[in-house]
Amino acid sequence: MSGTGKATVGVDFGTESARAVLVDVGTGRELASAVHRYESGVIDQRLPGDSTPLAPDWALQDPDDYLEALGSTVRAVLAETAIDPSDVIGIGIDFTACTMLPVTADGTPLCRLSELRSEPHSWVKLWKHHAAQPEADLINETAETRGEPWLDRYGRRTSSEWFFAKALQIFDEAPAIYARADRLIEAADWVVWQLTGVETRNSCTAGYKALWSKQEGFPDRSFFDSLAGGFAEIVDEKMSREISSPGERAGVISAEAAALTGLDAGTPVAVANVDAHVSVPAATVVTPGSLVAVMGTSTCHLALAEVDRVVPGFCGVVEDGVIPGLFGYEAGQAAVGDMFAWFAGLLAREGGSLDEMHKSLEREAALLEPGESGLVALDWWNGNRSILVDAELTGLLMGATLSTGPGEIYRALLEATVFGTRVIIETLEGSGIPVDEMVVCGGLPFQNRLLMQLSADIIGRPVRVAESRQAPALGSAMFAAVAAGPDLGGYDSIVEASARMARLGPDEYLPNESTGPAYDELYSIYKDLHDTMAGSTSGMRRLRSVQDRARKETVVPA
Amino acid sequence: MSGTGKATVGVDFGTESARAVLVDVGTGRELASAVHRYESGVIDQRLPGDSTPLAPDWALQDPDDYLEALGSTVRAVLAETAIDPSDVIGIGIDFTACTMLPVTADGTPLCRLSELRSEPHSWVKLWKHHAAQPEADLINETAETRGEPWLDRYGRRTSSEWFFAKALQIFDEAPAIYARADRLIEAADWVVWQLTGVETRNSCTAGYKALWSKQEGFPDRSFFDSLAGGFAEIVDEKMSREISSPGERAGVISAEAAALTGLDAGTPVAVANVDAHVSVPAATVVTPGSLVAVMGTSTCHLALAEVDRVVPGFCGVVEDGVIPGLFGYEAGQAAVGDMFAWFAGLLAREGGSLDEMHKSLEREAALLEPGESGLVALDWWNGNRSILVDAELTGLLMGATLSTGPGEIYRALLEATVFGTRVIIETLEGSGIPVDEMVVCGGLPFQNRLLMQLSADIIGRPVRVAESRQAPALGSAMFAAVAAGPDLGGYDSIVEASARMARLGPDEYLPNESTGPAYDELYSIYKDLHDTMAGSTSGMRRLRSVQDRARKETVVPA
Repeated sequence: MSGTGKATVGVDFGTESARAVLVDVGTGRELASAVHRYESGVIDQRLPGDSTPLAPDWALQDPDDYLEALGSTVRAVLAETAIDPSDVIGIGIDFTACTMLPVTADGTPLCRLSELRSEPHSWVKLWKHHAAQPEADLINETAETRGEPWLDRYGRRTSSEWFFAKALQIFDEAPAIYARADRLIEAADWVVWQLTGVETRNSCTAGYKALWSKQEGFPDRSFFDSLAGGFAEIVDEKMSREISSPGERAGVISAEAAALTGLDAGTPVAVANVDAHVSVPAATVVTPGSLVAVMGTSTCHLALAEVDRVVPGFCGVVEDGVIPGLFGYEAGQAAVGDMFAWFAGLLAREGGSLDEMHKSLEREAALLEPGESGLVALDWWNGNRSILVDAELTGLLMGATLSTGPGEIYRALLEATVFGTRVIIETLEGSGIPVDEMVVCGGLPFQNRLLMQLSADIIGRPVRVAESRQAPALGSAMFAAVAAGPDLGGYDSIVEASARMARLGPDEYLPNESTGPAYDELYSIYKDLHDTMAGSTSGMRRLRSVQDRARKETVVPA
Repeated sequence: MSGTGKATVGVDFGTESARAVLVDVGTGRELASAVHRYESGVIDQRLPGDSTPLAPDWALQDPDDYLEALGSTVRAVLAETAIDPSDVIGIGIDFTACTMLPVTADGTPLCRLSELRSEPHSWVKLWKHHAAQPEADLINETAETRGEPWLDRYGRRTSSEWFFAKALQIFDEAPAIYARADRLIEAADWVVWQLTGVETRNSCTAGYKALWSKQEGFPDRSFFDSLAGGFAEIVDEKMSREISSPGERAGVISAEAAALTGLDAGTPVAVANVDAHVSVPAATVVTPGSLVAVMGTSTCHLALAEVDRVVPGFCGVVEDGVIPGLFGYEAGQAAVGDMFAWFAGLLAREGGSLDEMHKSLEREAALLEPGESGLVALDWWNGNRSILVDAELTGLLMGATLSTGPGEIYRALLEATVFGTRVIIETLEGSGIPVDEMVVCGGLPFQNRLLMQLSADIIGRPVRVAESRQAPALGSAMFAAVAAGPDLGGYDSIVEASARMARLGPDEYLPNESTGPAYDELYSIYKDLHDTMAGSTSGMRRLRSVQDRARKETVVPA
């Protein structure tokens, strides 16, 4: 066991599974970890036990899968270490977001009620449920027309993934479900409610996904009223204006939760959090000056600042959203690892191994000098999140010749994602928020070292790698230590917890000065293409509208 | 045997081999054919029997390979049919161009002289010898400065592949060889010389490759003088001002040539011609209104007109260059089949069959509607020949997403080449030369039916396919029948020969009207990208200069 003998549990709820880690409070060392896949996974074809197909763009989950994963993983880490549950001084969780559900006043999910089980709108809407686009469009238009002051905090466009678009879709399409829902709540907060018996709301999802700010609260009821008659009172009827900051104690483990998890009743439970955001202190970052990049299939960027600035094209700025007392700025790139996998898959489709293909492409790509391939790409294979906030943009590759090889294309795709990161950094700095280094976590930094070196070379700043491969779960365990507080053997603040429990790994990538001029020039070519193609009448946009028409014409009527 | 009992021989000298066909004069039916590969092929590494490496971009051939192939293939078709040589009323040949060599006054190639055998400049410079770029640059600059009137006939830029660039390279780099050469001559004309014992020069290579025109002859001696002192008299010292039109009789088979080929001495020999150009009447086209496309790894476009017009970005306009009495307009696309093969090769590199890959890509591509893929490409994988005349331009693919499949990319590449053809057609029509249909020949039309249908759909005109798969050799046999003339059983003119000996095949592709609007819109997107990227400060050009610098830096000094 650890030096202090005290430990906390962090549980990270992902898209397909949940992972718990048991962490030594004194050192942050991971004592045990366990993973549990959700039985129903992502529900995007048909509801469990039901044959009616879901519409395209739907993505649901079963909230009972979360409880099953919670009990199973926490019990597993306790069992693996044979730790005395009284030495576990707290538990914290993080979640995908916005992942939300309708529940009754006592927290019962509507989809658990037999009479509503076959109604899709009664289930959890997962973050990547994209069927609320008409509602998001209405929210954006209405906010623009009314000149809503909060629009600037969100790059002037909100997403179909966010809370009010999803809630409004329920209101529009299933008014009976909307009426029956006493509460509409983030799954993160709902799981904390199941642990504690107390409903709380966390400032991270409220701020980044539900248009809330510490200074101004939620949008005015007149805004919701202009979206739809009957929707005006959503906040007061179905949500809460009481918002808790990360690190606060939401409550303690209830008798029911003790039975589920094996933790002692009375163990402190931290306020819920979002997976990417909780990774920031786990990557050692608790002060301004660093950009944290959580890199996987896509990348989420987070930066901290003492100042509240409008940063064009960012997903959001939230006070206390990441670290209490600071403004947290979030940006994103919609295709990173996904785009490399797309290309490897294109080449490996004859049945070869994708892993081998990645390795061989990386080997070839690593032999090249900057600019040698003559290629530049726009990394918009899944649209552009920051700073253009436009899912309709598409990927572009320029400079191909008959001698262009696969390693050259692969490198151009890697470089393109880093050019995209550089746009984000320059936008932050242009708004007065300095970025001196990038600290990375997530799966990609450990798989793709070339990408890390290219990152340092192209952004011209050191790139450091968080030690933990499970940054979100570690971050949740750190917030659990804060929720426990010093009296129980935890910490006063996340800053202190981060100093004791988080570490950087041995890999540090420094910019190669000799490649600077070539990358500056390639970046300027990228940026010109970026600005041209983002224009409202660009060929890329016209192409997309031709495609939309072609697709409509090829849909066979039922 | 045939109805008339008379036959002619056509020999097509390609890059790697020569092909002879024996053709019935009355019907054009192919009675026999034979192929012979050149023993030394393309000499681009080192000279035969020599270990000194050639510089990059060099491409030479051995003229004795041509004679070997000539004798072997003509003897083979005679033997196969057991025809009485007296029934063979003529022979014609066509060649790659500009493919040229230095010879003595009696026609002996300098490379055949033992003392000059190890001197690269004494060998045949093949059409794709690209080492005379500095000389081509000088020719272009000098012509621009002097305001040479002939520049307009060549899209205002001449190629390093052409006659005077190659001749000037010999003059610059090997003055002794230049001095020793009594004649500098196209290989096409040299082979005819070997057949007849008489030196002739054909108007096709003179016009398209050596800046000659029927009205104005060659450029002025003062032009050559400004290129280099001592180069002023090249035409009068090493060439000839007497130029013969296609279909004229160059002479008759000499005793030596009779021994070589098995033909009777005295058999008429047609003036030489160029492979693509001789294909025009073989594709039934002898009047204005049709665009002939010779489609293979690259595509050559030829159109006829009664009028002499400046067509921007065309490779050349030559009176009597294709059909006597008409102006022949030539354009080209530098990567067509080559580009499709590049993509198939990228995907099939794990060892699969390229043919299978092409078939599977075509199957997938054929299922798509216009615009459905959301992709548009610029077909510049090998630069742009017409109408931009710029080898430095590169390929571009726009519109990729994570769901883009290989069949979609393949179709975008096919479509891009047709968009490029449409630019050529619109440029011709913009200069007052109408194009009512396209007639295709070469290998590609028989391999890629989808490309043919896309061609009709995108250019909005019927696409017809020449019946013969050996259009150049058939065309040469047709010109042989004209050189023989009606007294011997041949024809008065190539128009008459074409009417009797050439046919269209059964496949005719008509534009699908329903796809017109979508392709008009996709073409307009293509054309905007085309014009933007062709701009002198476009990202594509800047990218190329970054690449040039990177390549220089990575060259390891010897």
